[in-house]
Amino acid sequence: MSLDAEPRIIKGYAAFAKDEELVPWEYEAAPLGSDDVEIEISHCGVCHSDVHTLDEGWGPTKFPIIVGHEIVGQVTAVGQHVKHLSVGDRVGVGAQCGACLHCHQCKNGQDNMCRHNVGTYNSVHPEGRIAYGGYAEAVRVPAEYAFKIPDELPSDVAAPLLCAGVTVFAPLKRHWTPNARVGVVGIGGLGHLAIQFAHALGATEVVALSTSDRKRKDAEELGASKFVTLKAPKDYAAHASSLDLIICTASSVLMNYDLYLSLLDVGGKFVVVGLPEDSVQINFASLILRQRSIVGSMIGARADIEEMLEFAAKKNVHPWIEKVPMAEVNMAIARLRKGDVSYRFVLEN
Amino acid sequence: MSLDAEPRIIKGYAAFAKDEELVPWEYEAAPLGSDDVEIEISHCGVCHSDVHTLDEGWGPTKFPIIVGHEIVGQVTAVGQHVKHLSVGDRVGVGAQCGACLHCHQCKNGQDNMCRHNVGTYNSVHPEGRIAYGGYAEAVRVPAEYAFKIPDELPSDVAAPLLCAGVTVFAPLKRHWTPNARVGVVGIGGLGHLAIQFAHALGATEVVALSTSDRKRKDAEELGASKFVTLKAPKDYAAHASSLDLIICTASSVLMNYDLYLSLLDVGGKFVVVGLPEDSVQINFASLILRQRSIVGSMIGARADIEEMLEFAAKKNVHPWIEKVPMAEVNMAIARLRKGDVSYRFVLEN
Repeated sequence: MSLDAEPRIIKGYAAFAKDEELVPWEYEAAPLGSDDVEIEISHCGVCHSDVHTLDEGWGPTKFPIIVGHEIVGQVTAVGQHVKHLSVGDRVGVGAQCGACLHCHQCKNGQDNMCRHNVGTYNSVHPEGRIAYGGYAEAVRVPAEYAFKIPDELPSDVAAPLLCAGVTVFAPLKRHWTPNARVGVVGIGGLGHLAIQFAHALGATEVVALSTSDRKRKDAEELGASKFVTLKAPKDYAAHASSLDLIICTASSVLMNYDLYLSLLDVGGKFVVVGLPEDSVQINFASLILRQRSIVGSMIGARADIEEMLEFAAKKNVHPWIEKVPMAEVNMAIARLRKGDVSYRFVLEN
Repeated sequence: MSLDAEPRIIKGYAAFAKDEELVPWEYEAAPLGSDDVEIEISHCGVCHSDVHTLDEGWGPTKFPIIVGHEIVGQVTAVGQHVKHLSVGDRVGVGAQCGACLHCHQCKNGQDNMCRHNVGTYNSVHPEGRIAYGGYAEAVRVPAEYAFKIPDELPSDVAAPLLCAGVTVFAPLKRHWTPNARVGVVGIGGLGHLAIQFAHALGATEVVALSTSDRKRKDAEELGASKFVTLKAPKDYAAHASSLDLIICTASSVLMNYDLYLSLLDVGGKFVVVGLPEDSVQINFASLILRQRSIVGSMIGARADIEEMLEFAAKKNVHPWIEKVPMAEVNMAIARLRKGDVSYRFVLEN
């Protein structure tokens, strides 16, 4: 089946400038490529990256933009070279929807690091078409970046796994050590999944680290073996050198990173997956004296996404979501800005 | 043989306050413990840590102090329980001269990370005696921290290996990857050894990174396959993502660490072994977008020192030194402050 005979108009919600609300908009999709699929979107998670991009917090945004990169839906058309997907398949798309697939990184299972990677929005495919995201009724993407959703995972619940899920799962796997004591900073969209994954991966301890007591009960229900409230330097001192791996999902320039680093034991790793909008201060003594590291990690590769979806299905890792009709996207964004969500908005068509 | 019968007076050069020159001084050594050795010092390297400590750049210094922790000399007395060393052995002592040897870190070959480690100066042994360093005629230290010097290494040349050598050798070994492309920042006391060790370890490339052309010829003679002068951002851009491992021996708070991080390829590690006296600025984008790390490393464990000495002897890794009579220590320190040394002062008795 091909839709190339007549123009395909896709309706969605777009922003036209920084600080403006999203409005209904439509664009003419490029013809379906031979390696592409078209997906009728049923759900799309609302990721903090969407807000950063709308705010131009990470640099210029190409307006008008349709954001959204935690997409789940049904395949409605496949290009002629697509073998592994069929019309009717339930698939997901994450933050990346293209790579060269030929370079050293791609061949090495790190296509998320490909120099030619294409973001699901605010990005341009090699042939020049603009990538529009998932706050829409449909999307056309390279089939290599549409992942089958395991039957055990409902579509609404699966959506946040595509970005938030793999963003924490990939570094947990990459930096795992036997008997790891894992800390999670920021109990939000990413953090509540990091707790679940660390627990499901068999961490000796999973410690939720928060600046308030508010989420203690939730964290324990999610699988945290301990909840530590960090208000004053003495709170950090009481837990100094107690962890092997910290997944930091918070991304404030105001955080005292040295205090967080002090929680790591010898050789411990502080993995940053959230990108602060400006530089941060680090005292290298925090690293040198205990041979600790700060490690960057960005989303995950295709293989990570596939492994993560299987793992989540098998181990019952389920994002906690709040469903919102897609027409109410502006309300969801406004509430996300205030941190008023437990723990992920999922837009529903 | 024991010297416990009468007090042992040790003469050296001590500082009595910040910003003051060193002056001849003597102290009464504690009785030789059953696990200790006494060493008649023939040589002691002048490490930048000595200057940081004299300046109280890393925190308070216990004055009067005798610094110096790149010690080589001859064993002149051994405690009754010491089995592996004898009077007459040629040994070296580095920056550490004690650890509990029982804790998890010590048993795990990381005694440099022991909570009870004792520095060779500005430190106190568990039984309360003050540790005085190597700008002296002799020193008494636990025998576990006196390392036999291989015959191939002359004493003067061996001295800087004890701290500078192992400080770069240990992280090179720990973070080595096949076909590593290694960069060295700062072509000084540590850096000129990092180049030699990286070359001797078989790095695919050894790139000397400097802000001036001045040391090009030296770096090439030391084993660098490439010399890169980094003056403007475009110089960094020309070598972006070209290295797997950088050993950063410089320690200025004024360095633009993001530019240095940009030189690392995907998954690359920036190892910091020099401690700036204040916090530095890092943009986490430098880490996240290419999944790079900043890793701290501190001196080396006993096993690292032993392996490093054997390796240096076998592979002809020789510090480039300038010998100075110990009485001229103030001249050496003054010149080191100006960076006027190629590449390590070694004081000689």
